[in-house]
Amino acid sequence: MISWKNPDTTAAWSRLNALKNKVDLKTVMAGEAGAQRVKAYAAPMAAGLSYHYAAKQVDDEVLSALQALADEMQLTEKYEALYNGEVINTGEKRLVLHQLTRGQLGQDVVADGVNKREFYEAQRLKAGEFARKVHKGEITNAAGEPFTTVVQIGIGGSDLGPRAMYLALENWARQQGCLRMEARFISNVDPDDAASVLKGIDVSRSLFVLVSKSGTTLETLTNESFVKDALKNAGLDPARHMVAVTSETSPLAKSRDYLAAFFMDDYIGGRYSSTSCVGGAVLSLAFGPEVFERFLQGAAAEDSLAREADVKKNAALLDALIGVYERNVQGYPATAVLPYSQALSRFPAHLQQLDMESNGKSVNRFGEPVDYVTGPIIFGEPGTNGQHSFYQLLHQGTDIIPLQFVGFRRNQAGMDVVIQGSTSQQKLCANVAAQIMAFACGKQDANPNKNFDGGRPSSIIIGDQLTPEALGALLSHFENKVMFQGFVWNLNSFDQEGVQLGKVLAKRVLAHETDGALKAYSDLLDI
Amino acid sequence: MISWKNPDTTAAWSRLNALKNKVDLKTVMAGEAGAQRVKAYAAPMAAGLSYHYAAKQVDDEVLSALQALADEMQLTEKYEALYNGEVINTGEKRLVLHQLTRGQLGQDVVADGVNKREFYEAQRLKAGEFARKVHKGEITNAAGEPFTTVVQIGIGGSDLGPRAMYLALENWARQQGCLRMEARFISNVDPDDAASVLKGIDVSRSLFVLVSKSGTTLETLTNESFVKDALKNAGLDPARHMVAVTSETSPLAKSRDYLAAFFMDDYIGGRYSSTSCVGGAVLSLAFGPEVFERFLQGAAAEDSLAREADVKKNAALLDALIGVYERNVQGYPATAVLPYSQALSRFPAHLQQLDMESNGKSVNRFGEPVDYVTGPIIFGEPGTNGQHSFYQLLHQGTDIIPLQFVGFRRNQAGMDVVIQGSTSQQKLCANVAAQIMAFACGKQDANPNKNFDGGRPSSIIIGDQLTPEALGALLSHFENKVMFQGFVWNLNSFDQEGVQLGKVLAKRVLAHETDGALKAYSDLLDI
Repeated sequence: MISWKNPDTTAAWSRLNALKNKVDLKTVMAGEAGAQRVKAYAAPMAAGLSYHYAAKQVDDEVLSALQALADEMQLTEKYEALYNGEVINTGEKRLVLHQLTRGQLGQDVVADGVNKREFYEAQRLKAGEFARKVHKGEITNAAGEPFTTVVQIGIGGSDLGPRAMYLALENWARQQGCLRMEARFISNVDPDDAASVLKGIDVSRSLFVLVSKSGTTLETLTNESFVKDALKNAGLDPARHMVAVTSETSPLAKSRDYLAAFFMDDYIGGRYSSTSCVGGAVLSLAFGPEVFERFLQGAAAEDSLAREADVKKNAALLDALIGVYERNVQGYPATAVLPYSQALSRFPAHLQQLDMESNGKSVNRFGEPVDYVTGPIIFGEPGTNGQHSFYQLLHQGTDIIPLQFVGFRRNQAGMDVVIQGSTSQQKLCANVAAQIMAFACGKQDANPNKNFDGGRPSSIIIGDQLTPEALGALLSHFENKVMFQGFVWNLNSFDQEGVQLGKVLAKRVLAHETDGALKAYSDLLDI
Repeated sequence: MISWKNPDTTAAWSRLNALKNKVDLKTVMAGEAGAQRVKAYAAPMAAGLSYHYAAKQVDDEVLSALQALADEMQLTEKYEALYNGEVINTGEKRLVLHQLTRGQLGQDVVADGVNKREFYEAQRLKAGEFARKVHKGEITNAAGEPFTTVVQIGIGGSDLGPRAMYLALENWARQQGCLRMEARFISNVDPDDAASVLKGIDVSRSLFVLVSKSGTTLETLTNESFVKDALKNAGLDPARHMVAVTSETSPLAKSRDYLAAFFMDDYIGGRYSSTSCVGGAVLSLAFGPEVFERFLQGAAAEDSLAREADVKKNAALLDALIGVYERNVQGYPATAVLPYSQALSRFPAHLQQLDMESNGKSVNRFGEPVDYVTGPIIFGEPGTNGQHSFYQLLHQGTDIIPLQFVGFRRNQAGMDVVIQGSTSQQKLCANVAAQIMAFACGKQDANPNKNFDGGRPSSIIIGDQLTPEALGALLSHFENKVMFQGFVWNLNSFDQEGVQLGKVLAKRVLAHETDGALKAYSDLLDI
């Protein structure tokens, strides 16, 4: 039987808390022993990726305490309950089924009288078939011309994940000859966002994917209207240029305003929806359904690895546990995500939502205030750019910020140049290796301004190339990491009540039903 | 006489530290008194902007202690010393003169036998004249065709600031009919970055601006070579497509590989160089030199306001001091920058560098370790996007993160749509007003999951529209805020020794001169 409980009620928690500052990175990473440690402290992942944690402040004793915590908190059992269809999102009384969009890890999950795996699969195939027809020219604009651009209209989880995934594979697809349509994204209710996107495309050749699970997201409906106006002004029929991704119960589902509708449901949270048709429609249109399927295969394989109970063989679980150690024992406030791949330029923004919206909470799943800190701040930019920017604080600032590197041996576009005896790709990889060691070991210098204390922990996920499979595995890794951390902190990681109050107050402002300070601010902003 | 000293040696510091948790936001922001507070707690800025701090945890007593700290630390006197040419960057023995690129606040500054204001002005005019000739078709490609695109090649300060400024004004310029050339940016040494940018442009019509102060930045030189190869492969002469922005002593300065060279010098740090020709060349080419001049005028006017000794009349100084109170007294680890303007999408990334690279330090300007925390983590995304993402943690997470909002009454593109009785722009503004109040006052709910504690502080800078002048004022505000905070923490905010160690180690990796863990990581990455 699973027992949902706070971690500070466990024996393992006390044991872990006694191990504060147990490992001195400068010592353990030095010399030949350091090289051995790099080889030993690695966990396999899917799609040729691997997770390396030698530069984390752990040793066999800390790892053993983390294993004890995982066992006592029943983390993999809770994962099993999740994918077997237990009501994990207790606040909203919902199952949590995003893993089912890419594989079947356990028993059949039947909800609302439907086998959910079959439902998600059918929607994926439907969106894939639609994309094929567009690519073949069987679905065209009114003039019979093929569509060349796909524009996703969505916000939050309907935007950040799909956008990050598209950017991650755009160069790869161009190189592979499978970039079938360029994608653009409209999200912000700021009208300048939609205006700017529309200026840069040929609307007569553009297909718009409207994404709103409820069909009532105000920003998204506003942008839809903005786009429809633009289509009408160009003499076009909006209904020939739009598809919807929504739930079957939404007002959009049966509307005749769309060429087609693809469905998701309440068991997939927005920030976990990249592998549902929220990501599937736009990615299948952009790259073809085969590429989207390869992306799902990578995620499915990584999901499967996350079932392993041995923390040393389960990268997502171990990453989660080390993060808990850093947050709750070491007291670090944030984690920086630093992919050494320009294609992952918006991956940190997606992880920022995934992590902070899931675990930025102060009450446990029973609604009781917790006595420990939960989700950290997540931020990041691609390396090497960040090196010339905020890395100064990471190296020499007064707070220690754990780092999550990602790197690939090969680039995507296949173009490169040799300068000073090395390729760009070699320089990129040399920089990330160098940074890991600079952060871990520092450097003593008589000039205190040039002194580096070191002792700053990092991990790195290494892959051969950022392919669809690798991207799927990478996405799954972080989704499962966040899930496991939520299990440790005993949170409901699948609701987001914290975004509601602002919506309610904004409506009040627009209805001019305010007084006091809110009215004063509204006046300042001329609303 | 100015005395450089640590803040914890002052009487004001003790006084301020005694005021921890002095102000309960829920109480002071309630009712009619809250409305009065919004009106009273505002400081003027240039270009029609204003800084509002009613939702910060300050009252007249805290403000008085902050004034005492400003006085005792001689903050405005130190600013005066800076703009009058004192050697403020003591580590590198350099003046700090970025304000001189946009105005003359004090006495003439002569260095290396040159009046620096005149020098910067001459470079600005030279870059402006060059841009005019390009726009008039007097400078063209070899086929006599006009250039239509400008591509900046630079990294860190040669990229983030100019890129953020370009994006901030692109829509405005299009609407005003003064978008003369579209701009693109190449920064990362990842070869996929340059490959992706080159795929999207017509290189035969593109002018490249190579930016490296030293002329030795490896990433930038590598990308230059990548671009030159692409030009040669297209049958073009690179020397007809490139200009350089560098220092007069750099190897690039006298090279015949460039159509023209525009100069900066060691007295302008990369992250403070947007108003020098690092920003001036690309922005003048994109928007015309008149627009760049308007941008400088906004910055100059704001610089002038920062001389005011009364903290209530000096927005940059007050913003800085409140930030110090939040960081050192309240103990908050980070600040989120949240512009309600899609045009400012990369402004947080620029501020992230500006702030974290300037003040992410652990030793004071004398090289002594400090006993207090310094620069916070800076991160952010535009609203309303962030509302559907990481705001969950900001509202209900276990850490309090102060917020810096920015909002404008009018959009840039002039296109809008009315949905449910309000425009997009009204919705955008209503949301930021609502968020300020939701964060400050929260909402009690019997369901603990829907309960909002409030007490989360924010400020907002409000403007009429994001024009070149407003953007200049906004940039100056944050540059001066960071400078004042550096003065309080007694740091040298103008060097960046923390980025050096990684460079040294990366060179060692590329030369295969490594052993131990560094070699092990290099092997994993196939270097």
